[in-house]
Formats: sequence, C-alpha cells, structure tokens
Amino acid sequence: MAYELFYWDGLQGRGEFVRLALEDAGAEYIDVAREPKKSGYGMDAMMKVLNSKTEAHIPFAPPFLKDGELIVPHVANILLYLGPKLKLAPKDEGLRYVAHGLQLTIADFVTEVHDTHHPLATDLYFEDQKDAAKIRAKSFIEQRVPKFFGYFERVLKQNPHGDKQMVGDAVTYVDLSMFQLVEGLHYAFPRAMKTLSKHYPRVAALHDAVLARPNIAAYVDSERRIPFNESGIFRHYPELDQNAK
Amino acid sequence: MAYELFYWDGLQGRGEFVRLALEDAGAEYIDVAREPKKSGYGMDAMMKVLNSKTEAHIPFAPPFLKDGELIVPHVANILLYLGPKLKLAPKDEGLRYVAHGLQLTIADFVTEVHDTHHPLATDLYFEDQKDAAKIRAKSFIEQRVPKFFGYFERVLKQNPHGDKQMVGDAVTYVDLSMFQLVEGLHYAFPRAMKTLSKHYPRVAALHDAVLARPNIAAYVDSERRIPFNESGIFRHYPELDQNAK
Repeated sequence: MAYELFYWDGLQGRGEFVRLALEDAGAEYIDVAREPKKSGYGMDAMMKVLNSKTEAHIPFAPPFLKDGELIVPHVANILLYLGPKLKLAPKDEGLRYVAHGLQLTIADFVTEVHDTHHPLATDLYFEDQKDAAKIRAKSFIEQRVPKFFGYFERVLKQNPHGDKQMVGDAVTYVDLSMFQLVEGLHYAFPRAMKTLSKHYPRVAALHDAVLARPNIAAYVDSERRIPFNESGIFRHYPELDQNAK
Repeated sequence: MAYELFYWDGLQGRGEFVRLALEDAGAEYIDVAREPKKSGYGMDAMMKVLNSKTEAHIPFAPPFLKDGELIVPHVANILLYLGPKLKLAPKDEGLRYVAHGLQLTIADFVTEVHDTHHPLATDLYFEDQKDAAKIRAKSFIEQRVPKFFGYFERVLKQNPHGDKQMVGDAVTYVDLSMFQLVEGLHYAFPRAMKTLSKHYPRVAALHDAVLARPNIAAYVDSERRIPFNESGIFRHYPELDQNAK
C-alpha cells in the first residue's frame, strides 16, 4: 500500500524533507493534500485527521505520514521510520541514532530559518515584524549559519568512512536533507550564501552530489517539486539578506 | 556501566528531561559536567567531546548521552534510546513512534519557551531584546500555550487506554517530560498559568501524578535537582508574564 504524506499544499516547507526521501527511493506515495477532493483526498482529508475527536494518535501539525493505521508525525520521526524501509538509513543500529541526531540538528536549524522572518509571532505578518526580523536575520547570517555549517563540515570531515556522506559509508536521508538545507538557504539568502558557502566545501560538494542522483534530478525538474516561494520556510526577502540596503 | 549524561552545570535546561527519566528508573548515571575535574569529569570533559577533531560522531550541542562508545545527542533521541532500557517506553513498536512524536512536539514547545526571552538573538542579553521579548511572550501566552496545551489535553482525552498517560497503558518518558513542562511554565509565567491551567485538567492531573511517583518526589527534594533559575529555559521575568505592568 502506498504511503500517505500529509502536508500543506502550495509550499515545500517541512514536508519537502520527507518528499526527497520518498522520491530518491522511488517509493509509492500519495501527497494527500495535493490530490483531488473527489478521490477522497485534498486539504479536507488532512484537516479531518488533525481535527479528529476520536483518532487515538492525533498529530500536532503537518507533516505526518500514514502507513496503514499508524500515524507518524514530525519530519525527523518520519525519516527515522522510513529510513530502513527506503534503504536510506545506516544498517548499523547505533549509527541510526547518530543519523537521527543529525536530522534533529537540521530540524533545529530549519526552525531558526523560519524565525528569521517570524521572530516575534507566527500569527503576525512578516510586514508587522520586519524590524525585528532584520536583527534576527543579521544574527542568523553572522552567528548561526557559520555555527551550524561549521558543524556539518566537521561531521563530514570526521566521518571515518569518508567525507562524501554525513554518516556511515552510504547515502542516507540525512544527506538528502542537507541538500534541501543548502538549496533553501541559497534561495533565501543568495548574497550571504555566495560568500559563506566557500568556507564549507564538503557541504557544497554534498549538495551537488545529491542533486546529481538520478531520482533527485528527475524530481527537481518535475512538476511535483513545488518552487520555493514566500509561503514556505525558506523565503527570499531581499531586506533580510546580507548587506541589505 | 553507568550512563554518562553531558549537559551544562548550573541549570536544569534541556538536560532535565533526560535526568527525570534516569531518576524515575533509578538508573545509574554520571552527570559528567557536575562531577569533579580530578575524577576526569567536569566541564572540561564535556568540552573535550564537543571540540574533538577526531571523534567520529560529534554532537552539535549538549545534552548528549554516552553509553559505552555510542554518543546519542538531542533530548528526544536520548529518550528514544533510553526508553525501552529504562522501561519507560511503550512495548508496542508502532506506539514508540507515537511517543517519540509527542516528545518532539514537547521539544518544539520548549524552543518556543526559550524564544520568549530570546526572540532576536541567542548572542544578545535579555535586557537588549526586552521589548521584542514582551511581544513574543504575549503571543506565546495568548496563542501558543493554548494551542499546545489544548493539543496535549486532547491527546490524553483520546488515548484509548485512558487519560492518565499520554500514550499506551503505562507511564512513559513522555509523561515525565510533561511534568517538567508544566512545572517550568508555572515557574516562568505564574500569573498566566494560574488562569490557563484550569482549562487543562488532565494535563494538570498528569503533572501531579508524576510528582507523586516515589523516585520523582525523592529526586525533586534532593540536591541533585538544580532549582529553576534565569540561566535555564524556563526563566521568571515578571515583565513577560500576563498582565505585566
């Protein structure tokens, strides 16, 4: 039976980290909110689960995955669950906790990316918190990107199996998520990333290697890949980029 | 061999969610940064791992757990790892993903608690972002606490095994973390919580039930429990509480 992925339509957002793993593995999945209502899918089907008064294991928010009766919420948890099934997790049991730890660090970083444009409140528009966003984005570019990217570069460098993947001796879902992180940051902060990325050659090479994988290349060129836009996590607001006027 | 928990000395912080599980289970553990340097522990021992240029699986930040050679970073990941060993996880494999999903929702909430006092930058003092903090805290109290607590209340209510625990038919690490969340919010926002907590009777009852567990009661009264303070995640700044002057 096909996996059912539940995530908002119209944006890559957090759901994209799951899509990349499913696409890379060539897995059969239904992107529920993007399918027509007449087939029993669409946004209504997602809201039905979220608002259910009887479902035993309601998720707090999308994305969540349904595999038969089991509902698995949170990107990192979904990838933990899917990883072995999609052959995108380390074979070694201990290394699976290492991979999951890396994915959780990526998740924390993604939250910080979101907060560059929404530092004060998720229920306020960007325009109503732009001054605070400029301060937060400056600290993000100057302090947080180097801290996280410096860490990811070290992880690659210190991987005893070589610097071509984040953990173990083969590509995992963590590498696919690293691709999305780099791609998204280049979209959101093109000026800052042009300078910054030179300092993290292994991270940059990993991004390029993932993009060269046939299933990822095909997916990124397909209509299934929603373009980056200003409803997602990675938003291009020129006034938040480095040396903004 | 005893588990080694690595976390900053002097604050409960994120490490406390792990301590509560270890304490409830009566597990043998070393709180590395709080032990004397002359025994080979202390802050130096923690920084040595974090700054290692040779360690294969460096963590991004504390807390992390060392079990023999394996390093497991991130609270939710540590609890995922320890849960079955401490008999604080559901026996059912599927429910373990449910428990982990709940723990990740708690982790997201904890990040939002932190951001009430540090909305603009972690490298700025609270005093230098107080105005932004007041806006963020107001939104947190009015929008986010009801959203998260409303969700947790529903989770308890809809648990087919009864509303005394978050998942399955027995206490898990998720319940212990819920206790800490409620305890911390009462410390940080006493005025807001006095009103709010009435609306979430199952969450309040869960907090009290966890506190009544013998090992938790003994731990909370012991010197091992660091008091809440303004270096931690939950900080009591009266100007951020409800109806602040």
